[in-house]
Amino acid sequence: MDKRARKRWAILDVLKGAREPMSGGRVAAELAGRGMEISERTVRLYLRELDREGLTEHHGRRGRTITDRGRSEAEDSRALERVGFLSARIDQMAYRMQLDLATREGTVVVNTTTLPRSAVTPERLELVSEVFASGYAMGRLITLYMPGERYGRDQEIGPDEIGLGTVCSITLNGVLLRRGIPTYSRFGGLLDVRDGKPTRFVEIINYEGTSIDPLEIFIRSGMTDYTGAVRGGSGRIGASFREFPAESEEAVRSVASELEEAGLGSLMVLGGPGQSILDIPVGPDRVGAVIIGGLNPVAVFEESGVRVRATALAGLADVHRFFPYTRLAEKIGD
Amino acid sequence: MDKRARKRWAILDVLKGAREPMSGGRVAAELAGRGMEISERTVRLYLRELDREGLTEHHGRRGRTITDRGRSEAEDSRALERVGFLSARIDQMAYRMQLDLATREGTVVVNTTTLPRSAVTPERLELVSEVFASGYAMGRLITLYMPGERYGRDQEIGPDEIGLGTVCSITLNGVLLRRGIPTYSRFGGLLDVRDGKPTRFVEIINYEGTSIDPLEIFIRSGMTDYTGAVRGGSGRIGASFREFPAESEEAVRSVASELEEAGLGSLMVLGGPGQSILDIPVGPDRVGAVIIGGLNPVAVFEESGVRVRATALAGLADVHRFFPYTRLAEKIGD
Repeated sequence: MDKRARKRWAILDVLKGAREPMSGGRVAAELAGRGMEISERTVRLYLRELDREGLTEHHGRRGRTITDRGRSEAEDSRALERVGFLSARIDQMAYRMQLDLATREGTVVVNTTTLPRSAVTPERLELVSEVFASGYAMGRLITLYMPGERYGRDQEIGPDEIGLGTVCSITLNGVLLRRGIPTYSRFGGLLDVRDGKPTRFVEIINYEGTSIDPLEIFIRSGMTDYTGAVRGGSGRIGASFREFPAESEEAVRSVASELEEAGLGSLMVLGGPGQSILDIPVGPDRVGAVIIGGLNPVAVFEESGVRVRATALAGLADVHRFFPYTRLAEKIGD
Repeated sequence: MDKRARKRWAILDVLKGAREPMSGGRVAAELAGRGMEISERTVRLYLRELDREGLTEHHGRRGRTITDRGRSEAEDSRALERVGFLSARIDQMAYRMQLDLATREGTVVVNTTTLPRSAVTPERLELVSEVFASGYAMGRLITLYMPGERYGRDQEIGPDEIGLGTVCSITLNGVLLRRGIPTYSRFGGLLDVRDGKPTRFVEIINYEGTSIDPLEIFIRSGMTDYTGAVRGGSGRIGASFREFPAESEEAVRSVASELEEAGLGSLMVLGGPGQSILDIPVGPDRVGAVIIGGLNPVAVFEESGVRVRATALAGLADVHRFFPYTRLAEKIGD
């Protein structure tokens, strides 16, 4: 992206986050706050150009708002910046997250899924519950987003939609980071499960070589088989492979069990120093771990033929908005 | 994969390729031919174990055949070996392919798609034709696989199915390789098209970091928009990014136009030395190119709600079995 495109995109991005029309001066101030110095005059020139292209709308003295086309343009333009940098986004979210496990206050990284209200049938909710009950989810908590609510980056729940939020497995990275333990997120994969036990990864996409979350795309492409995993003990689920410094093995184990106790996730497997896990080799100075994918519970919708908008690493969410998965049906009924 | 698993897998793989029951001795001979020395006695022990697990079937003196479960087991076990090596498979197929553009004899790399016969409606065939006509396909040729036919690795067309084969864009790598030009296949991506022109990649997966073909998974996950691209001029199509040594620019251009003339594909964009393409930077000693994805024409099925089994780099196919896309409806009617 050249400099000009980057400025246009930044202006659209500011307007996208605004609930009311914004003047050129306010846009310039907001950009300065983000470390991008563009004069008010230049901002206005860009805004006029964006008006002409139908990406923003001028409401006279009240300022500008973004149009639907502008919103989708801003979304698109992000893709290039995202390319190759899923690993960077992982680190960014882990850094921004703040969770105190002792007081259970703060934020966690959330995965979101938007789906038509009509697709949320009792049968499917039952399957979602079974995914949690079988231990194929990241913890035991879930949250709901209702029509009109916005979440993550720019997603808004439509009038006939409902949003589900699950704890993203990057939450573990965030907690470890606060305790000084770096996490290397190596790949996301499709994990084969037989008789309730993980056997091997059947597909793998490295976080460093992709712009899209591997689990997100495995789910969307219908390659998962949670129905089989929870009902017959054998199937395919989303999981990720992480590595930690070998010296931190005990600390990782202890943080994982604290997280588990809080209902916010757990480790599926944690190896010893240099120990291969499911045939995946690990260097001598590291320990490897397999972690359940946070998006897992919603995969059952896609498997039963519902196209969903699932987004990993969608944003941060206050830990207080989550509730136990067992109350999901009741909460949706409210 | 440990040694034992590798042997089991190799035995299943031999049986999978056989049209008739095979004795333990023949399996051992075949394995030796592949450079894997296992005694006949050991092979028989493994076979008995595989019988018990329902992966092979014993037909007395005639020998063993593989069962459906065995076949799927053998397929699965390959995944781990495939991990991280899509780039290796690309090179392997390019190396095995033999095409003489002067006489138009030989083989090309083929992508295959299996779909229910009932899904092949005139409307959808019309859309497939439009993808070709709009230049969003690799060339102008296609081939059909009928019930009972096998193709690629182990796929068999079922009684109510039909298979479509399209020219894989790796065919270009193969032709260039014979002329001494190496191709670096960098990534597969989802390319945004506006008014018939490529604008930018909106998602990217590097070939070196994935076990699954990026275009295959973009199609399966419903992220493409060919219908928009061919009917309205704007949409999202599968394309890949390759690089060649800067000195070979002219040779690449000339091979590409020979391929185009033969109906076997073309380049969408070829840059100059060190020149960025669609904002993707290219090193000073290289030229970059954007190449249309070979699987593209079949994406319209997935877009209209039909789940297809699309496989990139499925195998090699004789160039004589291909015919112009304009005859597709007539050939299917036959």
